[in-house]
Formats: sequence, C-alpha cells, structure tokens
Amino acid sequence: MNGPAVWVDGQASETVTALDRGLHYGEGVFETIACLNGRARFLSLHLQRLALGCRRLGVPLPPGLRAELERVAGEGSRSIVKALLTRGAGSARGYRRGAERGTCVIIRYPWPEEAEPRAGARVRIASVRLGENPALAGLKHCNRLEQILAANEADGAEADEALMLSSAGQLIGGTMTNVFLIDGPSGRWRVRTPEIRTCGVAGVMRQVLMREAARAGLAVEACALGLEDLEGAREVILTNARVGLWPVSALPGRALGPGPLTERLQRLLQPLLEAPADE
Amino acid sequence: MNGPAVWVDGQASETVTALDRGLHYGEGVFETIACLNGRARFLSLHLQRLALGCRRLGVPLPPGLRAELERVAGEGSRSIVKALLTRGAGSARGYRRGAERGTCVIIRYPWPEEAEPRAGARVRIASVRLGENPALAGLKHCNRLEQILAANEADGAEADEALMLSSAGQLIGGTMTNVFLIDGPSGRWRVRTPEIRTCGVAGVMRQVLMREAARAGLAVEACALGLEDLEGAREVILTNARVGLWPVSALPGRALGPGPLTERLQRLLQPLLEAPADE
Repeated sequence: MNGPAVWVDGQASETVTALDRGLHYGEGVFETIACLNGRARFLSLHLQRLALGCRRLGVPLPPGLRAELERVAGEGSRSIVKALLTRGAGSARGYRRGAERGTCVIIRYPWPEEAEPRAGARVRIASVRLGENPALAGLKHCNRLEQILAANEADGAEADEALMLSSAGQLIGGTMTNVFLIDGPSGRWRVRTPEIRTCGVAGVMRQVLMREAARAGLAVEACALGLEDLEGAREVILTNARVGLWPVSALPGRALGPGPLTERLQRLLQPLLEAPADE
Repeated sequence: MNGPAVWVDGQASETVTALDRGLHYGEGVFETIACLNGRARFLSLHLQRLALGCRRLGVPLPPGLRAELERVAGEGSRSIVKALLTRGAGSARGYRRGAERGTCVIIRYPWPEEAEPRAGARVRIASVRLGENPALAGLKHCNRLEQILAANEADGAEADEALMLSSAGQLIGGTMTNVFLIDGPSGRWRVRTPEIRTCGVAGVMRQVLMREAARAGLAVEACALGLEDLEGAREVILTNARVGLWPVSALPGRALGPGPLTERLQRLLQPLLEAPADE
C-alpha cells in the first residue's frame, strides 16, 4: 500500500466533479481517523462530530458510512482514513443551496513514518490568527485557509506545530491539534484546555482525554486562556486523532522536560490508543 | 448552450482529482466574470485580484490564463465565466504545502435569466456574521461557508440578498455583493462603502464604481460603517460583477424609492457595462 486509495460515493474512483461545492466553497466536513489492527479508532466519536457538522452546515450524511469506514479500515492493518463529505455537485451557480445530494470521499493513506512516538513537539506561535464565528466553531469543516497560512509561515520550518490565537487574542489550539496546559503547585495540579466557543476544532482526542481524565478523578477545565497561561504552564500537551498525546518539549524561549502529569495521562490513554475498542 | 462547459488545466474535462487541496481545504481563489458580446468584462481587474490572491495564499497562477479566458468568453455571446484556481493535488496529507502545481478550472455558465435588469433588491440582515482575518480580507478565496450559511438562513426566502456584519458588528457587504450607502443633504451627497480591512471581498465592480465616480468628481469614501449608517441612508446600491449596479428597493422595515444619485451612477457606468472595453 504505497499511495492513497480513494472511493467516491462508495465506488473506487480518483475524481470528483469539478462542479462540486466542496471544491468551490469548501462546503464540507471531514474526519481523519487512525486505524490500527484493521479497526477505526474512536469511530463513534468521529461519526458523531461528522453528523453534527453535517446538520449545522447542511451537508448530506450518507447512509452506510459507518459500515464503509469499517470495511476500509479492515482492509489494512495500520492506516489513516479520511472521510470527506461535501454538499455535492452544484445545480446552479452561487451560494444558495439547490437539490445537491452530497459527495462522500473516503481516502485511505499509508500510516505515516513520522507518526511514530517521538520525543516531544517543538511549538511556535503562529502570526496568523483565527477569525471568530460561533456558527463554525468546533466543527472540522473544509474552510481551512487560516490553518494552512499558519502551518506554512516562513519562520515555521523548525517547529512541529504552530499554536493559534483567536482574533481577540485567546489561545485556541494548534493548526492540527488541541492543546492542554498543566500548572499549579505539586500535588494540586490543574489541567486546562481552551474553550472552543468562537473558533477552533473540538478534536476527538481532546474529548477522549477529557473523558478519561474525568473518569480517573482528574478534571480538565475548558476555559478562556491566553498566551500568559501558556507561558505559565509547567507541562503542555498537544492532542490529535493520529498522534494521540504529544508532549511539548519546546515553547518559544524555553524547553519543557517530561512532566509527571503528562506521563500519567499517557499511561491512562495508552490502552485505548493501542488496542481500539468500539470506543 | 444549456449546461455549463468545463475545462480543467486547459483540457475539456468534467472532473478534478479527489486529492485536490481545493476540495479538502477550500485552498483556492476564484473570479466570476460577466462576458458580453464574446468579451470578458473587466478582465484585467479580475486577473489582478486573482494574482493578488494567488500571491497571498500560495496558489499557483497558471501562465496563459488571460488567453484562455478570452477564448472561452469568445465562444459564446453572453455567458458567465468562472475561473477557479486551487493549490492542486496534495502530495501528502495535512496543511503543510508540498510540491503541488495547482489546478485551473474554467467553467462557462449560460447567462442566467434572473440577471436581467430588475426593479430593485429586497435586502435583509444576515444573522451569521463574518469572522475577521486581515490575511484573508479582500480576496475572493474559496472559504465561503459563512456566505453560504448567510444566504441560506431560514427566513431568507423573500429577500434577494443578505447584508453581513463582521463579528465586531461592522457592516461589510452582501453575501455576493458590495454595498454603497448614499446620504447627506440634497446637493451635498455623500457616498460611502464599508472598508475591506478585516473581512469581506473587495469586488471588481466596487472598484470600478469607485474609480468612475472619482473620475466624475464624486468621491466615494471607504470607511467603517455600521447598521445605523444603513438605517440613515437615503439610497443604497449593491454591486457585483454580474449584475453591475443593483439599487436596493427594500431594507428591513422600510422601502426605498429610485434615487437621483443611484440613477446618476447608473448612467455613468452603463456604457462600461454594456460594451466592455479591455478595461
């Protein structure tokens, strides 16, 4: 399995119509799903967010999507499966919706080499900020120019990830990750993550970490955070569906060592990440 | 000429690769060009904005685009030609750019029936607002979910266009138009249009109207405007590349009659709209 394998509306196909509103307007939603041992990890959570995005943005949710993703995941042992749903081929020009029936693109990528466990993420702060729109906040929609500009900033070559602020200056998350800050005196740790209210993506791994931490008696607070909170953090963790937990080893101007709470959270999530159950 | 005719990278084709970053991220820019008598109206201005968008967003600008658009426009007498440029097929997953070479989609649509001169636009105020991002402001990029949500609001069926505010509450423009407000005492008219600094599209027809008005000794001020300015306006005009000048006949709660300054501006632009010269 070298290049990606692609299915469009259930058929092996490399192409979509050039009239697709996904291509014209980014009118769609997507999920990036880690598949291990032939199983799609956290599939139910991915499907939940997809359904929410479809409802809020008027994108048709194809029936049988779960079965198709399970089948595609089952055909390889380790892979990254992307599900991309758009409004579909436009019946007319312009922003008003017509009788579109949606397009479903499933892509299976080889598991990337760089997704192996790594020492720690070197993080910078992006210059580009995130526009605020509560109607889009939380969703993994296909309007991603801000993240692309942030990820490709000229000074970004040395960093693994760029953290982004909202236009109002709040810390939101990385271009492809959510972020958790750990501080407080020893024994009375505090774990916080930016609230996703006006912008940003509410990641599946963010949700899993918050759920598992709560089950272990360790509450994670989602709240308004700024750069000063990042500067005051003892430990910083990035999360996404592919990498799982990704400890930060370097912030602008300072290095961070491996931290005790990060290690505790890693131990907590390791079983779920390695042997995916239905959830 | 019933349905649209499509060319991809210079070849007649109905499809693009499902790996195109335009489809995945809305990573592209577009222009919608009115073509009359086989000529693409304001082509140089459209190409200028396209080039600006390509430069700012890292989208390849294909050589020979002007010649291709002139050829496509020349094959029909009246049509709408859309040029859509994307970053192209992704060489890898994720937001970081690779060695993509761009995709160029040209679509020629039949001239729409509803583009005939009409009495006036009925305008509402959209509930969805525009997120603010100076890095994207002014460009006609392919991240258009906000405009789509605004254009499809449940209460919008009776209106021809929805005006949008920025997240900070400033008046920016319609989902597919720019807006001009005319007020002031008789004989000392004032023409103003929202500045496009943090969001919104700087339309080609907006630029033409400002240029021609200035040449006729009638300065148009681009400045910060709010809903109170809209409410105080005697005449309101929408502009876009297809319709040209579109007088507003109804705002929420009040009707607007044909106004003297609107008529003067219409007379000013009519020759340019009807018999397009090179610019």
